[in-house]
Amino acid sequence: MKVTVNRKAHFNAAHRLFRPEWSDEKNLEVFGKCSNPHYHGHNYDVTVSVTGQVDQKTGFVMDMKELKDIIKTEIEDVFDHKNLNEEVPEFNSSASGLNPTSENIVVVIWKKLRPHINKSHDLAVTLYETPRNFVSFNGG
Amino acid sequence: MKVTVNRKAHFNAAHRLFRPEWSDEKNLEVFGKCSNPHYHGHNYDVTVSVTGQVDQKTGFVMDMKELKDIIKTEIEDVFDHKNLNEEVPEFNSSASGLNPTSENIVVVIWKKLRPHINKSHDLAVTLYETPRNFVSFNGG
Amino acid sequence: MKVTVNRKAHFNAAHRLFRPEWSDEKNLEVFGKCSNPHYHGHNYDVTVSVTGQVDQKTGFVMDMKELKDIIKTEIEDVFDHKNLNEEVPEFNSSASGLNPTSENIVVVIWKKLRPHINKSHDLAVTLYETPRNFVSFNGG
Amino acid sequence: MKVTVNRKAHFNAAHRLFRPEWSDEKNLEVFGKCSNPHYHGHNYDVTVSVTGQVDQKTGFVMDMKELKDIIKTEIEDVFDHKNLNEEVPEFNSSASGLNPTSENIVVVIWKKLRPHINKSHDLAVTLYETPRNFVSFNGG
Amino acid sequence: MKVTVNRKAHFNAAHRLFRPEWSDEKNLEVFGKCSNPHYHGHNYDVTVSVTGQVDQKTGFVMDMKELKDIIKTEIEDVFDHKNLNEEVPEFNSSASGLNPTSENIVVVIWKKLRPHINKSHDLAVTLYETPRNFVSFNGG
Amino acid sequence: MKVTVNRKAHFNAAHRLFRPEWSDEKNLEVFGKCSNPHYHGHNYDVTVSVTGQVDQKTGFVMDMKELKDIIKTEIEDVFDHKNLNEEVPEFNSSASGLNPTSENIVVVIWKKLRPHINKSHDLAVTLYETPRNFVSFNGG
Repeated sequence: MKVTVNRKAHFNAAHRLFRPEWSDEKNLEVFGKCSNPHYHGHNYDVTVSVTGQVDQKTGFVMDMKELKDIIKTEIEDVFDHKNLNEEVPEFNSSASGLNPTSENIVVVIWKKLRPHINKSHDLAVTLYETPRNFVSFNGG
Repeated sequence: MKVTVNRKAHFNAAHRLFRPEWSDEKNLEVFGKCSNPHYHGHNYDVTVSVTGQVDQKTGFVMDMKELKDIIKTEIEDVFDHKNLNEEVPEFNSSASGLNPTSENIVVVIWKKLRPHINKSHDLAVTLYETPRNFVSFNGG
Repeated sequence: MKVTVNRKAHFNAAHRLFRPEWSDEKNLEVFGKCSNPHYHGHNYDVTVSVTGQVDQKTGFVMDMKELKDIIKTEIEDVFDHKNLNEEVPEFNSSASGLNPTSENIVVVIWKKLRPHINKSHDLAVTLYETPRNFVSFNGG
Repeated sequence: MKVTVNRKAHFNAAHRLFRPEWSDEKNLEVFGKCSNPHYHGHNYDVTVSVTGQVDQKTGFVMDMKELKDIIKTEIEDVFDHKNLNEEVPEFNSSASGLNPTSENIVVVIWKKLRPHINKSHDLAVTLYETPRNFVSFNGG
Repeated sequence: MKVTVNRKAHFNAAHRLFRPEWSDEKNLEVFGKCSNPHYHGHNYDVTVSVTGQVDQKTGFVMDMKELKDIIKTEIEDVFDHKNLNEEVPEFNSSASGLNPTSENIVVVIWKKLRPHINKSHDLAVTLYETPRNFVSFNGG
Repeated sequence: MKVTVNRKAHFNAAHRLFRPEWSDEKNLEVFGKCSNPHYHGHNYDVTVSVTGQVDQKTGFVMDMKELKDIIKTEIEDVFDHKNLNEEVPEFNSSASGLNPTSENIVVVIWKKLRPHINKSHDLAVTLYETPRNFVSFNGG
């Protein structure tokens, strides 16, 4: 009998979408105003979902306080009030980092959390860039 | 590695639930106040979800501006500030149209969007008739 | 020591904006797609706010169950699943009714509630036509 | 062609997390402030999701009024304005009841609803303990 | 030139409405299911609003981190995961405490915060007992 | 008889809080992580509120399409997907601009809108930096 537990978190960050090997014109054409070289930013909301058996003693799939602490250490402390392109290594463009689209960010978050979640549990992450644009990834 | 991208849209429309071959009494019995012949209406919210591989160049499953434009042309321009029973052909009761329940509307939306989405991508649609009543369809 | 108590309610209704003495062209020019003769509709949310002294015995400004019942009888039963232009007398255009704009609706709601609220209490009403368009009236 | 219909409901309840065979110290260590012997409480939100074929006559997977009534009788009348540990038999600790964690509550809700839903339909339940902590169960 | 700054906080608590000098029957008659002797509970949301001149150096009416800390110490640490009737002195019924209605709680919160806010600033507090029932108090 | 009409808009922007004449240490001490030299960002929500008499012909205080257009031209086109410190003149620190705190931004928005609103109408603006931190200004 498997239950999914979900915990919401959030961080505020600056970013821009661009590929360093493309000209400014091509970046503007593909990414529009999201390629602004001066950056823009978002209040990102994250929902982390862990699926597994309910422990008969505690009634927990996983202690939510523990999940909250993992999200704080692995995600909020790394992303909050940061410039994703400049300060988060996975997206550092001068070191062939990923373009910080929502799709790439949600995969990076999933990979950072996966080692800290019980191996017998499934993990999925949903990332809201705005209330109208959001993405999700379950490792598949 | 597949990611789901989601985009929210909305439209305001009038409708009534009824079957033309039934008497007014039977329509009232089955559909209650939703069968009011003078119509009532809703602020419909729609979430369109597209699942596929992340493009290595752009970092996109699909360009959200393109998805936004498809939703505008195929859904918002057709449904917004309209009377679903009178003005949307799929629900036109004098031409044996469907009863505009949430279930039938969400399937119609899915069918209108499907030809415009990359064939290798999966499509799902969620339609909120009110914040407390909503439906979803993934083609299955 | 005055406290304001607030109660949210909602109703779903159809309407159109138009003035019967104007031509269709002029109605379209002034009211845009809101003048569609086939109607469109909304999930209206209403917040009713009553300000007054806190009763020392009960700790209430006003019993919220009583306020909930007044809103049900005076507003929800009259407006919910109705066509405002056709079925609510204040907006009946064939009888020189008001144009059912949010501004006119919120004033009508306030006037319908006022006689049922203690005279020593202040009354304000906020009406959401959509999450992004809303109006308020306090009788002033 | 299967569609999922969803209905939201809610109830306000008190509870505490604890295991009667553990000492107060161990309960505090495992459950933190949630083990407060004087109880605390929540506004619980519930989303009930039913998946099935759309009826060709009505355009319904299931009549939402009927689903609303089932939720009222089976869930809201039993849980609303109650102390889960003291007044809901499944969680009565003096009778070896379950610990009222979100995980255990969502499974109990699912089991109480399942017999009232058409056997050919799938059932899933999501329970929000707070806007940031929520759980879901689909019987699997 | 005065600006209002607002900060949201929340706490989860149990309570019951009743007056110790009334019989159980009268309490039930006046307070309905809210008088359940076993308690029920809520996720309370609080918005604290401070109005004053904008400091020319910092651009702040008041440092939001400082306001957040005051709310934590004075409100969240005192009310969160507590039984208001049993554990918050202002509402302790065996010591002629106030009935913990939303009205009385919002006044108590205002009085607890007022000494910690600059005297030249105005203070208002809004308390949500549920998303549909809320109260506000500005000291007036 | 005055009614208030409200319209919500939003923009996504990057910013940092700092005073150019202060050392990095003092900026960090006063503004904390909000002073990060690489910037961070927000999804800002804005509510614009206009109070005035209801026009007897149209039933409008002000045409909401006109208000929407003013907000787009004066606010969204200027602030959306921009770096407030680098690209919005009022906050340009190399030209003794204001520190882009929420308080200063809401006053700038009010001043940019005021000339475009009928002189006999009152204007108020609320700015959400996050769902938990927001400010409002009515010119007073």
